[in-house]
Amino acid sequence: MIKESIYHRPKNNFAYAYDEKTLHIRLQTKRNDMEQVTLIHGDPYDWSENKWQVHKKDMYLQASDELFDYWLVEISPPYRRLRYGFELTNEEEKIVYTETGFYNVAPSDVKLYFCFPFLNSIDVFQAPEWVKNTVWYQIFPERFANGNTENDPEGTLEWGSVDPSYDNHFGGDFEGVMEHLDYLEDIGITGIYFTPIFKAYSNHKYDTIDYMEIDPQFGDKETFKELIKKCHERGIRVMLDAVFNHSGYYFPQFQDVLKNGKSSQYKDWFHIREFPVQTEPRPNFDSFAFTPHMPKLNTENPEVKQYLLDVTSYWIEEFDIDGWRLDVANEVDHQFWRDFRKKVKTIKSDVYILGEIWHDSMPWLQGDQFDAVMNYPFTLAALDYLATGTITANEFKNQMTKVLCSYPENVNEVAFNLLGSHDTARVLTLCNEDSRKAKLLYVLQFSFKGTPCVYYGDEIGMTGGDDPGCRKCMIWDKSKQDLQLKSFIKKLIHFRKTEAAFGSRGKFRFMESGIETNHLVYSKSYENEVVYVAINPSEKPITVSIPDVYGTYAKNVWTNETITPIKNSIKIELGANDFFIIKAY
Amino acid sequence: MIKESIYHRPKNNFAYAYDEKTLHIRLQTKRNDMEQVTLIHGDPYDWSENKWQVHKKDMYLQASDELFDYWLVEISPPYRRLRYGFELTNEEEKIVYTETGFYNVAPSDVKLYFCFPFLNSIDVFQAPEWVKNTVWYQIFPERFANGNTENDPEGTLEWGSVDPSYDNHFGGDFEGVMEHLDYLEDIGITGIYFTPIFKAYSNHKYDTIDYMEIDPQFGDKETFKELIKKCHERGIRVMLDAVFNHSGYYFPQFQDVLKNGKSSQYKDWFHIREFPVQTEPRPNFDSFAFTPHMPKLNTENPEVKQYLLDVTSYWIEEFDIDGWRLDVANEVDHQFWRDFRKKVKTIKSDVYILGEIWHDSMPWLQGDQFDAVMNYPFTLAALDYLATGTITANEFKNQMTKVLCSYPENVNEVAFNLLGSHDTARVLTLCNEDSRKAKLLYVLQFSFKGTPCVYYGDEIGMTGGDDPGCRKCMIWDKSKQDLQLKSFIKKLIHFRKTEAAFGSRGKFRFMESGIETNHLVYSKSYENEVVYVAINPSEKPITVSIPDVYGTYAKNVWTNETITPIKNSIKIELGANDFFIIKAY
Repeated sequence: MIKESIYHRPKNNFAYAYDEKTLHIRLQTKRNDMEQVTLIHGDPYDWSENKWQVHKKDMYLQASDELFDYWLVEISPPYRRLRYGFELTNEEEKIVYTETGFYNVAPSDVKLYFCFPFLNSIDVFQAPEWVKNTVWYQIFPERFANGNTENDPEGTLEWGSVDPSYDNHFGGDFEGVMEHLDYLEDIGITGIYFTPIFKAYSNHKYDTIDYMEIDPQFGDKETFKELIKKCHERGIRVMLDAVFNHSGYYFPQFQDVLKNGKSSQYKDWFHIREFPVQTEPRPNFDSFAFTPHMPKLNTENPEVKQYLLDVTSYWIEEFDIDGWRLDVANEVDHQFWRDFRKKVKTIKSDVYILGEIWHDSMPWLQGDQFDAVMNYPFTLAALDYLATGTITANEFKNQMTKVLCSYPENVNEVAFNLLGSHDTARVLTLCNEDSRKAKLLYVLQFSFKGTPCVYYGDEIGMTGGDDPGCRKCMIWDKSKQDLQLKSFIKKLIHFRKTEAAFGSRGKFRFMESGIETNHLVYSKSYENEVVYVAINPSEKPITVSIPDVYGTYAKNVWTNETITPIKNSIKIELGANDFFIIKAY
Repeated sequence: MIKESIYHRPKNNFAYAYDEKTLHIRLQTKRNDMEQVTLIHGDPYDWSENKWQVHKKDMYLQASDELFDYWLVEISPPYRRLRYGFELTNEEEKIVYTETGFYNVAPSDVKLYFCFPFLNSIDVFQAPEWVKNTVWYQIFPERFANGNTENDPEGTLEWGSVDPSYDNHFGGDFEGVMEHLDYLEDIGITGIYFTPIFKAYSNHKYDTIDYMEIDPQFGDKETFKELIKKCHERGIRVMLDAVFNHSGYYFPQFQDVLKNGKSSQYKDWFHIREFPVQTEPRPNFDSFAFTPHMPKLNTENPEVKQYLLDVTSYWIEEFDIDGWRLDVANEVDHQFWRDFRKKVKTIKSDVYILGEIWHDSMPWLQGDQFDAVMNYPFTLAALDYLATGTITANEFKNQMTKVLCSYPENVNEVAFNLLGSHDTARVLTLCNEDSRKAKLLYVLQFSFKGTPCVYYGDEIGMTGGDDPGCRKCMIWDKSKQDLQLKSFIKKLIHFRKTEAAFGSRGKFRFMESGIETNHLVYSKSYENEVVYVAINPSEKPITVSIPDVYGTYAKNVWTNETITPIKNSIKIELGANDFFIIKAY
C-alpha cells in the first residue's frame, strides 16, 4: 500500500456534518490501491469491561480521479460524537489508519483515533432550501432592455446599434426588465442575479458611488421595489451584487481622502500606504488589482464594517431581496463575512449568500460564511471539454471529481454552476458558434450537481468575446433569436423541475469517460429514480451501454421513448454531437 | 516522483499568515523524494506585456517524519496577495504542482495556481505576547494548601492524612495559595492555571452549581480579588477554568428541568432527548460522556449563550483574570467560541484562551477561536519516549514532527505543553519513580517549542496514579520534598527567561534521533544564538557530535563550561540518563 497517498483530516471535505444527524467521512487513497476501506468507529465514551466499544461500517468508492480514489460513508452517531479510524484492505495486506498513523492491528486506545467531537447543529453548513430548485438568470442591467428612455444617461446609443465598448451606454433599466418578466417566466427562470445596480460611475457599476442609492439610469427605488414585487409574484427570487471589497473612485469618502489627505476623517476607510495619495504609476493605496478606480475598502475598520452592514440590511429590509452575490469575496476578511452572514440571516433567514471566488473555496464554505461560490472550476473544465476541446472527457472527469471531492456534498448541492458571465467570453463564441456544442454544454450544466445560471442572451444564441464583447445588448427581435436553442434550454429547465434526480439533490457518479470516443456517461440518483446522461461531443456515432440499470422501467426523457432494459442493461446508439437523458425507476 | 504523496491546501498549516506581513507556505512530499522545492509566485494582478509576472524562491526542508518531508518558505508579498505553485526537482525530473494538478512546464494561466487572496490582518492568528514568556503552574485548589480551616467543608480530612478518593475533601483554599506565593515566585512561576473554583458539588468542581459564585470552600470573592491582586503584583497571571460544555447536576436550571419537565422554562437550556428526564441506565439527555452529573448545556440557545458570555465577562471585568481554559472545548459549537473570543478580547485584548482538546485541533486554531490548546500529543509522546520507554527517540521525533507540521508556526509558539494534569497519572509515577527520567522530561518540556506548565507538586517529586491518585495534597514538609528536583526545575525556568532561543520563539529543528542509542538531539535558534539540546535516556554513555555549530562561541549553559568548537563542530560525552544544553552564539 502507498501509505503516503492516504489523506484524511476532519472538519472540511473529509469529515463534516451533512445534516443535523448525519456525518460524512471521506478518505483519499491512491487510485486502485485498495480493495476495501472500512470505517472503525465508536462513541468516544462508550466503554464496557474496560474496553472501548467499536463498530465497523464499509465505505463505498465514491469517485476516482487520475491519482486518487475517494471513499465515503454516511454515519449517524446516536450521541452525535464519533471517534474513528480506517481499516484498509488489499490483496497484500490489511492495515489500520488513525490520527496518529498506521497500525497492523486496530489500537485499543480511543485517544489515537480521529475525532468528530460533537455534531452541533448550529455548525452544520446549511444553504437555503429554495436554492436547490432555482434556475438563475444573470442580468447585466445596462444591456438587458431599455424600458424607459427618460432615464437614459447622456450619450446613450441606440439599442444594439454598435458593439459595446468599455464606456458606452445603451440605456438598459428596471422597466426594461419588468417588461420581459413574461419572457423569463416562460423559459422557467426562478432567480435573477443582477450585476450591480447602485449608483456608480461606469456602465458595469462595479465602482460604487453610493451604496444606498439606485443608479438613476436604472430607475428609482419605487421602480425597483415594484420590480421585486413583480418577480416575487411570479416565484422569481432576486439577488443583488455586493461590491464590498472596494468602492469606486468617486465614492465621496474616497474623494474626501483625495482632497484632505491625512486629515480626512475617512483616511482609515481605505488602505492608504502613504500620503499624498497618488494613482500613478501604480496607486499608493490598496485597490482591486492595480486600478485606481476601485480603492479597497478597509473592512476591518468598525466604521466601514458598520456602514457596509447597514447597506446589507437596508436592501433586505426595505426591498426584500433574496440573495447577495459578493464581488471579489476572497479578498475581504473572514471576520467581515462572518458578521455579514449573521446580520443577513438574522434579518431574513433564507437569503442566499454567494461568493465570487475562482479558486478552491473550502475556507469560506464551512457554514460560517457563504452558502456557495461561483463554480468557475466547473465553467473552465466544461468549456475546455465541450467548447474548445482542449481537454478530453477523461480529463474533465478527473478535474470535476477532484473539485467535487474537495467539498462536502451539501456544499456541492448548491454550487452556482455557470457557463459564462459578464467576465468571460460567451458560450457560443467559445463553441466557435457551433450550437450543437453549446447544447451539449447546457445538458451538462443542467444535469450536473449544483444549481445552473444562464447569462442573459446565451439562451437565444448571443455571441461575444471577452469583456466588453460579452456585454452586448440583448436581442429582442425574434427573427434574430435562436428560438430552437431557447426551447432546448427551456426543456432542460423543465426537467430540472419535473425530474427529481436531474435536480441538485441527485447523487452524482461518473460512469464512463471514453478514451478513444471522448464521450462521457454519468448518473444521478435520488430516492427511487436514477437519471443516466451520456454526451458524445465527437463527430462519430457511438454505442453506449449502461449496465446494472436501476429499477424496472426506463425512459428517454428527451424523446419520451420507453426503453426496455435487456438483462438489466441498456444499449443505445448515440449520434455525433448528441446526448441522451434516460430515467430509470 | 510520488505525486500521490504531495499535499498542499491553503489557509491552515500549509499556507497561513505568520504575521501582518508574512505568509508561510508549506508543502508535504514523500520523504527523500525531492532534492529541491521552489515556490513559483506572483501578485495575481501583476501582468506585463500580456504575461503574468512570476518569481521564484527556494523552500527549505523544515522537517521530516517517517513518511514525509515538509518544506517551508516565508514570503512577504508587497501587495499582500499571492498566487503560487511549486517547482519540484529530483534526479529524475522537474515538475510543477499547482491547485489544478501537475505540469511539465509552469502554466502561464494565473487562474491555475494556488491562491492566498489577501493577507487581512484581522484574520491573522495572534495569541497574547505575554504567553510566550509564561511558565504555568496548575493548581487543583482543593489540594494545594489549606490557609483557612473555617471554610473547610463538612468532613474535611486532615491534610494529606489519607489518599485522595473520588469524594473526600482536604480543605485547600485561596488563602492557602496566597500563603505560598513566595514559593511560586521563587521557582519562577509566572502564570497559575486554576482548575474550577466556582460553586460546585464535587471536590474537583467540574460540576458547576453557580458560575457567578466562588465555591465557599475556597473562600469568597474578596479573598479571590486579593489573590489576583497579589499574583499580579508578583507578575503572575491567573487563568480560570470555564466549564461551559456542561453544568453540574445541581445547577438550579437543570434541577428546574428535573422538577418541572417539559414545562420548565429551562427545558431548552439542555439537550433533553425525551421527557420525563431519566438518568438510568444511561441519561436520556446529552451529558459529558454518559455521566448524569454533567448535563450538556445547549450553547446554541441564545439565552444560554448570553448567560455564559455574561459569566465570561464578569470574571474578567470584576476580577481582572488573564486567561480562560475551556473544559471539553471540542464538544461546544464553533459559533459559541467565536462569540466567546470576541467578547473576551473586546473586554481585555490580551486574555489567553486555551482549549482543552486532546486531538488534532486545527479547526479551533484559525485565529477566530482559541489561542492555544493543551498539547496532549506532546504529553503522550514525551511520556512514551522518556517515562515508559514504549516508543523510541526516532518515533518521538516522527510523532512530534507530524504534530508541529500540522499547525502554523505561530500556533506552535504558544502551545500549552504539559507533562501531566489532574486528568493523568503523575510524571514521576509514570517514570517508575526514577527522577533521572523525570529530569530528562523536564529538559525536553522546557526547551520545546511552546509554553510549559508544571502540575502542582510535580516539581517536588510528588507521585500518584490516575485520577484520583494524582490529586494528593501538596506536600509542604520540606524534608519530604525532593528539593534537588525542585532546584533542577527552577534552573530550567531560569533559562527560559535568560536564554532567548530556549524560550518559545526559537525555531525548532530535530537533528538526530539515535536508532541504537535512543538519544535525541535538537536545536532551537532565535536571532543570534542557537541552543543545542541532547538527551540520552539509555543506560549507556554516548558521544554526541554537533556539526556546523552556529557562530563563534559555545557554552554549556547547565554547567557554565566554555566549549571550543573544533573545525566548527562539537563532540561531547553524555552519560547514561544525562543531557546537555549548549548555547552557540
